Amino acid sequence: MKIILASKSPRRKEILEAMGVGFEIDVADVDERVSDTLSPVEAVCEISERKAKAVSQRHEGEDCIVISADTVVVIDGRIIGKPKDAEDAFNILKSLSGRTHEVYTGFTVCSEGKSKTDFEVTKVHFKQLCDDDIRRYIATGEPMDKAGAYGIQQKGNLFVDYIHGDYYNVVGFPISKICVTIKELFGINILY
Amino acid sequence: MKIILASKSPRRKEILEAMGVGFEIDVADVDERVSDTLSPVEAVCEISERKAKAVSQRHEGEDCIVISADTVVVIDGRIIGKPKDAEDAFNILKSLSGRTHEVYTGFTVCSEGKSKTDFEVTKVHFKQLCDDDIRRYIATGEPMDKAGAYGIQQKGNLFVDYIHGDYYNVVGFPISKICVTIKELFGINILY
Repeated sequence: MKIILASKSPRRKEILEAMGVGFEIDVADVDERVSDTLSPVEAVCEISERKAKAVSQRHEGEDCIVISADTVVVIDGRIIGKPKDAEDAFNILKSLSGRTHEVYTGFTVCSEGKSKTDFEVTKVHFKQLCDDDIRRYIATGEPMDKAGAYGIQQKGNLFVDYIHGDYYNVVGFPISKICVTIKELFGINILY
Repeated sequence: MKIILASKSPRRKEILEAMGVGFEIDVADVDERVSDTLSPVEAVCEISERKAKAVSQRHEGEDCIVISADTVVVIDGRIIGKPKDAEDAFNILKSLSGRTHEVYTGFTVCSEGKSKTDFEVTKVHFKQLCDDDIRRYIATGEPMDKAGAYGIQQKGNLFVDYIHGDYYNVVGFPISKICVTIKELFGINILY
């Protein structure tokens, strides 16, 4: 059964590759705006579902499983997406400094007639950051395409004191929970 | 200042590469046997120090920093190394199933006249594993060269319920703490 990754995130691609899963990528542009009244969990699940639906429509009649996901960083109940510019990245990283935030990823797995959306949450505690380190990190360019303005699997790792929960959920998506969901829904173990 | 990685672990190499750090590899074979009376922390620090000393002796007079490390998995106070064979891997994974174990990594950073050894510990909680999944995982060959008989960054990820602490410490070594130690000791930020 073919796996289709409905995401253009290089991190999600790398996770599937690290797991030795064969897959194709097919991405649909969907409207990622959601109502302000949605909670972080509702928002990531809603967007993930939109992505999966848009892509699976293109593959009707094919024997495939579509996987999509959406990730946000949340602090004080406030959703933080990708930084708009360097100054925004600086403000985001300042707001995470010395504190614990949550990373929510909603994911959808779907095949003909069957679909399930679920989520994972991981707590991440940041060290106290100095302005100089933040500015030098931003100068590497790493924060700009990432929710929360850091990449835990790259240089952003230096800012992290500890995590509690699933690591890959912070990198891109919770591959472990996704595999379990696929096994429950389709009876297939995609890893071994 | 040149960084020398005194380890043949492909995971430690990959971590430094992911961080964008330029480095060379130089490995010394050292006696990894230690007294049974040593605690896990004492054991990993002792072996890490031996590795660093053996390699740094070869680079006397060079402007370089040597990084070495040693990792063990500990459950019920008992040190678990790499599996001897498939049956040993099965028994190790059975003993980790449904429980929390600790991963200890001792590391040493040293340059001419200055050296520091420290360690990091991460808690890893495993899901309840079924024998069939364990056997299929062992058949992939992944467990055989790894302390605790699993690779958290590969298919072994499916066994992990959650971690508490530093993720890269479980993969290979605590790059974040190593960078901080290098900064304290030599005033150099090797990441940015």
